[in-house]
Formats: sequence, structure tokens, C-alpha cells
Amino acid sequence: MPPRPPNNATARGEFDLISELFRPLTRGNAAARDLLDDAAVMQIPPGRELVTTVDALVAEVHFLASDGPADIAWKALAVNLSDLAAMGADPRAYLLATAWPRGTGDAWMEGFAAGLGEAQDSFGVTLIGGDTVATAGPLTLAITAYGTVPTGTALSRAGALPGDDIYVSGSIGDAALGLRLATGGLDGVIEEHAAYLLSRLRRPQPRLRLGRRLRGIANSAIDVSDGLVADAGHIARASGVAMHIAAPSVPTSDAAAHVLSSSPDRLSELLTGGDDYELLFSAPSAAEGAVMMAARESGVAVTKIGTVTAAPPVGVVIMDVDDAPMTFDAPGYRHLEGVE
Amino acid sequence: MPPRPPNNATARGEFDLISELFRPLTRGNAAARDLLDDAAVMQIPPGRELVTTVDALVAEVHFLASDGPADIAWKALAVNLSDLAAMGADPRAYLLATAWPRGTGDAWMEGFAAGLGEAQDSFGVTLIGGDTVATAGPLTLAITAYGTVPTGTALSRAGALPGDDIYVSGSIGDAALGLRLATGGLDGVIEEHAAYLLSRLRRPQPRLRLGRRLRGIANSAIDVSDGLVADAGHIARASGVAMHIAAPSVPTSDAAAHVLSSSPDRLSELLTGGDDYELLFSAPSAAEGAVMMAARESGVAVTKIGTVTAAPPVGVVIMDVDDAPMTFDAPGYRHLEGVE
Repeated sequence: MPPRPPNNATARGEFDLISELFRPLTRGNAAARDLLDDAAVMQIPPGRELVTTVDALVAEVHFLASDGPADIAWKALAVNLSDLAAMGADPRAYLLATAWPRGTGDAWMEGFAAGLGEAQDSFGVTLIGGDTVATAGPLTLAITAYGTVPTGTALSRAGALPGDDIYVSGSIGDAALGLRLATGGLDGVIEEHAAYLLSRLRRPQPRLRLGRRLRGIANSAIDVSDGLVADAGHIARASGVAMHIAAPSVPTSDAAAHVLSSSPDRLSELLTGGDDYELLFSAPSAAEGAVMMAARESGVAVTKIGTVTAAPPVGVVIMDVDDAPMTFDAPGYRHLEGVE
Repeated sequence: MPPRPPNNATARGEFDLISELFRPLTRGNAAARDLLDDAAVMQIPPGRELVTTVDALVAEVHFLASDGPADIAWKALAVNLSDLAAMGADPRAYLLATAWPRGTGDAWMEGFAAGLGEAQDSFGVTLIGGDTVATAGPLTLAITAYGTVPTGTALSRAGALPGDDIYVSGSIGDAALGLRLATGGLDGVIEEHAAYLLSRLRRPQPRLRLGRRLRGIANSAIDVSDGLVADAGHIARASGVAMHIAAPSVPTSDAAAHVLSSSPDRLSELLTGGDDYELLFSAPSAAEGAVMMAARESGVAVTKIGTVTAAPPVGVVIMDVDDAPMTFDAPGYRHLEGVE
């Protein structure tokens, strides 16, 4: 049937791939049913709800096709679990759907499976199923993640309240600079900083421990994937509030601070670049101690960067070092007055 | 950042798309959280397990890019829910991840959303989340489906026992002929038959009602997606048995029977073509009455087509009208002696 190769028209047969590379990633999890069945079967403990999400990643859009296969696999799983972190969920398992370009080599696939194995062991999840197809286009991945929360405790973008403090974990802008480095758009960075920025781009760390500790503490949360400004906007619109953020308070790594010291104009790039996979959240000011305790227990820094105020207008205001509102000409940014 | 357009670089912005086209598909299901959050949150009733699966579909591999958008949407959801049917699950919800070719028009997307709406209403599920990205390649869809079963009752490919009868629902080979028609490889079919064969290709009907009624009756089950022969092989290998199927017993539609009457050599094409989305299952001979009752209650024909025998050798034998074993030169087919 000319226009329609069989489903298993990959470099190896689908069944070989599954058994050789992916079946070991189930680590014996019974939900995977040895990848032999049409679907996975998962038990949700009493008193808990399922939290589930899918992310699609396309070569040259979400990662560079020249990135190493293990890095691509790591990132695909990490960005997905970052969504569970933003919901405060305990991660459990994932499904992997892959559309492989024809001619993808065995070594590449082995590297991909190895990176997936590293990532899942690091994040505490196992593969429970998936689908493998061929494509004439770029490598395309869709990972569906499964986690649980005690019923009714999932975090949301929609709960920010006027008076809340705004916090962000880790540091912002590293991945944006890492991407500049990887694509030849940033010079003069010392080797140690370059390695750090690239690792932040290629090996993001979903803030799972922090997310689950913020249950019952944070009023709203999101992971920073589209960029700090755009994601603050998502909280603002979902919650019907204004998010006031002080740019000088936004935490930057040593590497990013070094770049900024010579190129201060890159600040807006850092604030809008995305791919940070930090948690941006709000909590009542009375909860500051609990927030800081959660951060300490999670082994990740958390920085207060602003305040939630009442709408209208709904939206985001970023104040610069002179306390003047910044404007952004960047994807995802909507000016305060311009939003829904 | 040159090589990396923003995540929302589709014909419309991602947020507009979600709110205008996809949010109505949640039909107010609370699990979707109005598509505002990073993940969906779903309650699994006590005493039930989650059954979940993902299928990826790529234009020109799993459907023709020239197919109508509503048909593509219908099929994407139907083939996915067919996996739940094969597990005996009651369908609940789905996530949709889409990689849209740049320049996909609004009308196309509206047609796609309309087809999805038709399909989900027909199958009794609602959208609870997803992801939308752009691709330089072909349209690529990944749907993750969620259903439930009473704990411990999910059907499996792995339970076929020697002595079981083998059954299949509906008719086999229609979609293979429909694809031939759609691609100009089949002539002389009367209009009514052509319409039927194309509808079987483009609007498959997952056998959800039958699947759930087979819980506690069938020892093994799979949906026929790769082709009857290949999928029988999946049961054989998962169960460690031999599947003996009589080709003359395999049910065909009037339209397919008409084609076969003039081109009997197309039989192997029908048996291996796939895309049938019928249920292939085995049950103890004592359960024949229960199987037929389940079929009647489900409004779908079920036909006994063979018998499970003990291995070795594990595999599939298809006997022709003269009771001689057929051989196939087709994707997914593995000769009896050649299997694992």
C-alpha cells in the first residue's frame, strides 16, 4: 500500500525496538504489563487523584537535532515531569510516543534509551507503555506523564490572590543563554560557565521535591517553560490578578550574572527566554516561613520576586532597577492593558 | 532565537486555539480544569483501575494528508479508544498532542475540532488537556486515552489458553480495500460499496461496548490494527500458544465479498491489511453462549474463526479453503516457525 508504510517501518522492527531498548525501562512495573498489551493498567491509591499531562517536542523547535540523543531523551521526560511538579504531584510513570525519522540509526536509539533510563531513575518514574511510528519529518516525541496527589490538593495556576508574594525557584535565564551558546550567538563565556549554561539547557531538573512540598502552602503555581514573563501572565489570567515582579529580584546564576554584567541588555532575553523549568508560584505572606522550609527540604533555592495585586487590569508588570515598567517584544508577552 | 520558534508559533496563537476550538471539547469536565493548568486531574472510582494508552499518527503514514480534517480527527481518537476496547475498559477521557505543519489554516483546524467533537460524543469521552506545537514536518498527532476497569478485570493479549475458540467482531479487510480505493488501486466497485469501504477506512468504530462485556468472558483480546494475521501473532506470542484460524471463516462485508468474488487473490491483503479496529479474542468453548450474548448486547456481530492450540511452535497458522496453510509476504507476518 504505497503511501502507507507499516506501523513498524522504523530502522528496526517496532517489536525488536520495544523489547531490546524500551522494555528494560519498565523496571518490572506491573502497570506496563511487559509492554505486551494494548494499554497500561495503573492502580491509584485510595484518597489520591491522578494528575496527568502530555508534552510534544519536535526537533529544531524544542531541541536541536544535533543535540545528543541522551540529552534529548532527558529533556523530553524532564519538561513533562516539570508540569507534574507545578501541580504538586508525586510522579509515577510515563508513556512515550515517538515518530522517528526514517534511517534513525541503532546507536542513536540506544543513546536515546540510555538517556531516558538516566532521567527516569533520577526522577523516580518508569515507562509503562508507548507507541513507535515512522515519519518523513523531524523527530517528534510525545510523553504522557502520570502522577498522583492527595485528593483535592493539586496546585493550580488559578489560585493566586491579591496580597500573595510571588516566588521562583532556582535561577532564570540559563537555558536561554545556553541556547544562544549552542547556536553560536554568544561569545566570551568562560568554559565553566558555558558548560553550566548548556547543562541547564539540555538537562533541566524538574522541581518535583519542591512542588509536592508546596501543596497546602502555595496558592498558585506554574513551571517556567514559556518564559518567566509569559508564565507569570498565565497565572495572572487564570487567577484574574496582576503579577508585579521586580526584575532585579529575579535570581540569576553566576554564569548568567556574568553575561549580564557585560551585556545588561540581555536581561529581557533571560526573562522571556523560557526553558527554565523552575517553579513560579504565589503564597500568602503569612506562609513565607513554610515556603522557605519547603525550599530547604527540597534542596533548591527559592527567591521572592514580587507581589500579586488585585485586577483590573489583569496581567504582568515587570519593574526594572529604576522601578519603571519594562516592556517586551517577545513571544508570549502580552502587555498589561492588552490581555483578555 | 533563530532555530527555535516559540511554542505557540501555529497559525493562530496556542492560547487562542485552545480557547476557541479545544476548550469546548472539555464539555465542562472538571478534570480538564478549563485547560488552564499544567496537567489534568482525574478521579478514579474506588475499586477501579486506570487503563491508559497512547497512539501516534503521522500524515501519509496513518492517514492521507488529503483526508478531510474531521475524518482525521475521528480516526485518531477512534484508533486510540480501540486499544481501550481491547482491554475491556470503560473510556473516560483523552489528551491531545498535536504538531501542526506551519500554515495550517483556520478552516482546517475548525474541521479537525468538529470531527473530534463528533467522535468524542459518539464514544463517550471528553478532552481533558493536551499540547500544541508547530512542525516543519507532516501533521503528527498523539492521543492519550484514559479509561477504567474494575480492579483486576482488564483483558490482555497474554491469556489465551489451548482449547480456546478464537473470535473476531464485525468484518475484516474493509479498511484495506478502502485504502486501495482512496489511492486509486481498486476499480469497478459500485458506489454504495465504495462509500462503505471508505467509511470503514476513515470512520472506524472502536468496539467499546463489546470490549467491556467481554470482561470475565474472554481469555485474551487485542484490537485488529496491524492486520488480523499480525495481531493474532501478538496474542500467540504474548500467550505462548498457536492460533489456528480458518480463512474461509473470517467475516467479510458484502462490499469486501464482492471484491473477493472477482479477485480472490486479494484475500491475503484483507487478512493482513489492518486498520480494522475489530476485536480479536479467545474464550473457552464453554463460554460460547456468553460470547454470543455479549455480541448481541453490543450490537455487533462476532464470528468464531479458529482455535487456540498448545505451543510449541508459538505462532499463527491460517488455513485456506482447502485446509492448507497459507503463507504471507506482508508486514507484521511472521511464519509459525520463525517466531521468538
